[in-house]
Amino acid sequence: MFFGSDNTSPAHPKVLEALTAANEGYASPYATDRWTEELTERLRDLFQAPDALVYPMTSGTGTNAALLAAMSPPWGVAYCHETAHIEVDERGAATFYGAGLKLKALPAADSRIAPEALVAAIATDKAGHGVHAMVPSAVSVTNLTEFGEAYTPAQLGALADASRLPMHLDGARFSNALVATGVSPWEMTRELSTLSLGATKNGGMAAEAAVLFDPALQEAFESHRMRGGHNLSKARYVSAQILAWLENDLWLELAAQSNAMAARLAKGLSEVGGELAYNPDGNMIFARLPRAMHAKALGKGAVYNLWGTDTSLIGDPETPLLARFVASWSTTEADVDALLAAFAD
Amino acid sequence: MFFGSDNTSPAHPKVLEALTAANEGYASPYATDRWTEELTERLRDLFQAPDALVYPMTSGTGTNAALLAAMSPPWGVAYCHETAHIEVDERGAATFYGAGLKLKALPAADSRIAPEALVAAIATDKAGHGVHAMVPSAVSVTNLTEFGEAYTPAQLGALADASRLPMHLDGARFSNALVATGVSPWEMTRELSTLSLGATKNGGMAAEAAVLFDPALQEAFESHRMRGGHNLSKARYVSAQILAWLENDLWLELAAQSNAMAARLAKGLSEVGGELAYNPDGNMIFARLPRAMHAKALGKGAVYNLWGTDTSLIGDPETPLLARFVASWSTTEADVDALLAAFAD
Amino acid sequence: MFFGSDNTSPAHPKVLEALTAANEGYASPYATDRWTEELTERLRDLFQAPDALVYPMTSGTGTNAALLAAMSPPWGVAYCHETAHIEVDERGAATFYGAGLKLKALPAADSRIAPEALVAAIATDKAGHGVHAMVPSAVSVTNLTEFGEAYTPAQLGALADASRLPMHLDGARFSNALVATGVSPWEMTRELSTLSLGATKNGGMAAEAAVLFDPALQEAFESHRMRGGHNLSKARYVSAQILAWLENDLWLELAAQSNAMAARLAKGLSEVGGELAYNPDGNMIFARLPRAMHAKALGKGAVYNLWGTDTSLIGDPETPLLARFVASWSTTEADVDALLAAFAD
Amino acid sequence: MFFGSDNTSPAHPKVLEALTAANEGYASPYATDRWTEELTERLRDLFQAPDALVYPMTSGTGTNAALLAAMSPPWGVAYCHETAHIEVDERGAATFYGAGLKLKALPAADSRIAPEALVAAIATDKAGHGVHAMVPSAVSVTNLTEFGEAYTPAQLGALADASRLPMHLDGARFSNALVATGVSPWEMTRELSTLSLGATKNGGMAAEAAVLFDPALQEAFESHRMRGGHNLSKARYVSAQILAWLENDLWLELAAQSNAMAARLAKGLSEVGGELAYNPDGNMIFARLPRAMHAKALGKGAVYNLWGTDTSLIGDPETPLLARFVASWSTTEADVDALLAAFAD
Repeated sequence: MFFGSDNTSPAHPKVLEALTAANEGYASPYATDRWTEELTERLRDLFQAPDALVYPMTSGTGTNAALLAAMSPPWGVAYCHETAHIEVDERGAATFYGAGLKLKALPAADSRIAPEALVAAIATDKAGHGVHAMVPSAVSVTNLTEFGEAYTPAQLGALADASRLPMHLDGARFSNALVATGVSPWEMTRELSTLSLGATKNGGMAAEAAVLFDPALQEAFESHRMRGGHNLSKARYVSAQILAWLENDLWLELAAQSNAMAARLAKGLSEVGGELAYNPDGNMIFARLPRAMHAKALGKGAVYNLWGTDTSLIGDPETPLLARFVASWSTTEADVDALLAAFAD
Repeated sequence: MFFGSDNTSPAHPKVLEALTAANEGYASPYATDRWTEELTERLRDLFQAPDALVYPMTSGTGTNAALLAAMSPPWGVAYCHETAHIEVDERGAATFYGAGLKLKALPAADSRIAPEALVAAIATDKAGHGVHAMVPSAVSVTNLTEFGEAYTPAQLGALADASRLPMHLDGARFSNALVATGVSPWEMTRELSTLSLGATKNGGMAAEAAVLFDPALQEAFESHRMRGGHNLSKARYVSAQILAWLENDLWLELAAQSNAMAARLAKGLSEVGGELAYNPDGNMIFARLPRAMHAKALGKGAVYNLWGTDTSLIGDPETPLLARFVASWSTTEADVDALLAAFAD
Repeated sequence: MFFGSDNTSPAHPKVLEALTAANEGYASPYATDRWTEELTERLRDLFQAPDALVYPMTSGTGTNAALLAAMSPPWGVAYCHETAHIEVDERGAATFYGAGLKLKALPAADSRIAPEALVAAIATDKAGHGVHAMVPSAVSVTNLTEFGEAYTPAQLGALADASRLPMHLDGARFSNALVATGVSPWEMTRELSTLSLGATKNGGMAAEAAVLFDPALQEAFESHRMRGGHNLSKARYVSAQILAWLENDLWLELAAQSNAMAARLAKGLSEVGGELAYNPDGNMIFARLPRAMHAKALGKGAVYNLWGTDTSLIGDPETPLLARFVASWSTTEADVDALLAAFAD
Repeated sequence: MFFGSDNTSPAHPKVLEALTAANEGYASPYATDRWTEELTERLRDLFQAPDALVYPMTSGTGTNAALLAAMSPPWGVAYCHETAHIEVDERGAATFYGAGLKLKALPAADSRIAPEALVAAIATDKAGHGVHAMVPSAVSVTNLTEFGEAYTPAQLGALADASRLPMHLDGARFSNALVATGVSPWEMTRELSTLSLGATKNGGMAAEAAVLFDPALQEAFESHRMRGGHNLSKARYVSAQILAWLENDLWLELAAQSNAMAARLAKGLSEVGGELAYNPDGNMIFARLPRAMHAKALGKGAVYNLWGTDTSLIGDPETPLLARFVASWSTTEADVDALLAAFAD
């Protein structure tokens, strides 16, 4: 009954096999090895982006921050959702790498940026007082969002049209978003300037790829990557992981499994008294739980997180709790059913 | 008919006289002169703060930024109103000095921070994920606000009580706020950790004082001041200005004049078809004007600014315009009446 | 007997008169006033640089830092002399504004950068490991140097030729250097990308001009200036000071006086037992003094600074002390002779 | 004949086995897993430091930079050797993390910091002008040095005594230094405030440990680690590598192998015409090679790097080339002999 986070699950066996296979002899360091070269070709094909540049990374936070710093001057504004990981969960990594750039966090009815809110925020900033104001520079979206909802390509296109700014996508759960929407990698990325492609949460060990669709960002990104400590000497081990993860669409297969388990959980939770708080598009479910229901499951060993809650209030018997459940590639139907049973009886 | 900003007005003659008087012989540099020493004593008395440290500065932006950077680690959150000068008009100075600290801009019904909104924002941030989240560090208020409203000491006290965080006050128009509320300097500052005391907009030439009520901030503030380029070699000329400005309550006399002229303007504007958008507590008036009314005054040479407006829309005949009028110490009744006449006939 | 620093001297009466003259009526804020416009034209003429951009500032440190940050990426190297003000006396302002840029401090036989040392340092850095190494970006020279020596235009040209990098000149004592070398403003600046032109130490109150000979630096410089808190609202008062200072070559007249007084002092010091440590080109003299000689003058009220000395060693009777004497525009022959007398008898 | 770098060698099989063993079931994220707990205990024992804090990392650069930023304010000076990795090979990571702190690079006769040079540099900085000067904050040493020499504990103690500043050790090749000097981990670290312990170059995949001997650095270090993107979600895989690497002294066994191979190479090189440039204490050899000798080996497929050389000069037949040879844990006697043969015949 481990639904705490997809980053608590193990790596997929094929990823480990790939590591072992890559562990032969000497390899050129700092991402000049043949695995990284092959990964670059593979992603250029997948994204139909022959000029894209690809960098193996071990950290989603580092990837997001170095990409945004490359896209924005220190006096730039990067727009994001108020629940974005870069805004609430990276202790200011983006403003640190960006030497003071501003993240403007937009509120919205759901967990996706609303084009109207984006347009309004940009218009307000553009009406600012010349050199006194910061300059609209970039938009950052997260797909899946932090609340498990998916953007469609049309929704991303609407944001691109609305903002006319370079767009970054935090794809910590990119494969889950692809499966949720049923679109191709190319369709999901054609509006993007940069992508953080995460494998860690879906079967990798510590494997992310930074993708620059705009090659003009190369010097700035490579500099920020280096200064941040993300130019890995033995990069072959990261690239090998991602290659194995992409091979034969393993990434989509694993995402399909975790998405399906989340859907099964969503359905079941509704039946036992939980109330879904967001659309369960991918592998994360947010549900409001009566406190007694939470206490019962906790007592039976269920593992998941309460969200946005002052835990000093948990004793208050009146308010339902907002709980987050994350399914991973290794979650089974039996796991889901055991959790549901813990809530039910 | 110059109502563009109080920073377009000249310095008061007594301020210039003080400069001339201070221009005798040699003086110890870098704020170790006798004028700065006297200023420190004077402000300690006014604020009933015998341990306060005082620094002559030439820039409100530099003062605000160096103070906030001293009050917050790079991973701290400083809360402010969404219209605060530090948020919208300093091109990210606070996040620059603060090495990536976050300004969290709070919306509100008027131009003052609402205690409830502040409490909610802090609670949300404190419910964040440990080291992943930024840390609530400081509150920054502006008095007068950017829309000309005054906080009372009770309102500042409510924010201090609500936040239990060190508080900074951007006092670019501090003297106007004192006159608006009729309270003493001590009453207005007793909750504060730091103060940016501005004389520039009310009769000074380029004269601000940074005040540390919390002497533990000394090393950090002095370091940021030095690195920002605000440790003036010939500081005597700034301190001499502020001393003259405080003498015989000149600062309050000048603020009373500008506040009164703004009140006169507010009353008159309402009579000729303007609609006040904020309470006219001090020396700034915001009013919605029918477009024809604006065009007429503009044609007659009136100088004031439109605010938060996409100027490409000015031709649209349907929406009223939001206009800002700022009275200064040198604004006369004749100036106000001329402006009102430009609107009226 | 005040020879502590030229920044302890008062402003010249004509500078104060200009302030009074400028203190009439309303003026457009933030360096859009007519004094700043006139100053721009004046400096374009002087430097024969019709595209140069000019900004009134109140701080040499802020000017230097914002200029270097505009000339170099955060991963750039700016070369300077190991005694440069930016290296030893600005508490890291340049690396702060430059978001981590490196100052590479070059040792030399005298207080000027040696072309060979500069070439060697750049060659070493260029032989670095690609993205692992920082990138040579700029050269910063100081004229007069911190030890009172002057660069000739030929010496600056040699550095430009040797480095093929954009050059910044810290001209806190630029007028003294012009007088020392007898060359025109144009000759002294034709190799430069940027200039910090200081009036404060030679008759101004707090008046510097940032000059961009390379207009491509505009956005970056204006952004750093704004974020540093150096976009002055009442800029007219700075520009007016500098205009008065330039008028009828007052700046050169004042520099000639301080240079002459330093020369008189240098000659006299040698005669009474001091040993000059650097060439006395301008208005600063460095001399090694027997400790007894220093003690005697100190006892008679002479004011000057010991330099680069661990003051805990002052009691050691064997080593001579390195003393700095700075003459200012207001230093008289009587002042010099009084100091010499204090040493002599 | 791969002697390019120890980071081109594969991971040791036992490290990979440990990864596979750790790949079971769910684990608590962000270094709260049981492998990290065990690693902490293991290192506390090894270093006889019961209060030490331990953090698994994937990057030596990130580790160095986050540690130094925790040890120094933005206005601090960290002293290092002029050839230190942090100075020449990390594109300013330390000044980036440290918000502008200064690395002061010390020249020396060999690749170790000389206590006299350190004392002199600190004395110079302490004689600076108060708030104008930066503040001596930390010393950073590298052991093995970048030129393959080892510090003994006595040498480190001399630097600690000389500087009286907190000391950081960049231990990218720490195990090689232990073997070179024959001392215990405790003896080598007892003067330290912090340690970057590197396994990557000696059998790991991407595995470093940040060690805080001074627990007061916790909040600052954890914040910099987070903001840098080095708080790994699946930290168990890094800790498991290092545990396997430490078990049964594997780390020392591997270091002994690479040190021995370097010694064999050093001896052989001298015999075939190379001239050793530094003491071959560990697993790196620097030797001056006649150009013909280099060309011959290159033609036979030998892989190693030329150092500090403007490669445009390689054609010049007169100067010998400085070559770096790095042996790794996987280097065999046959490898060494093949390289020597390539030079010899």
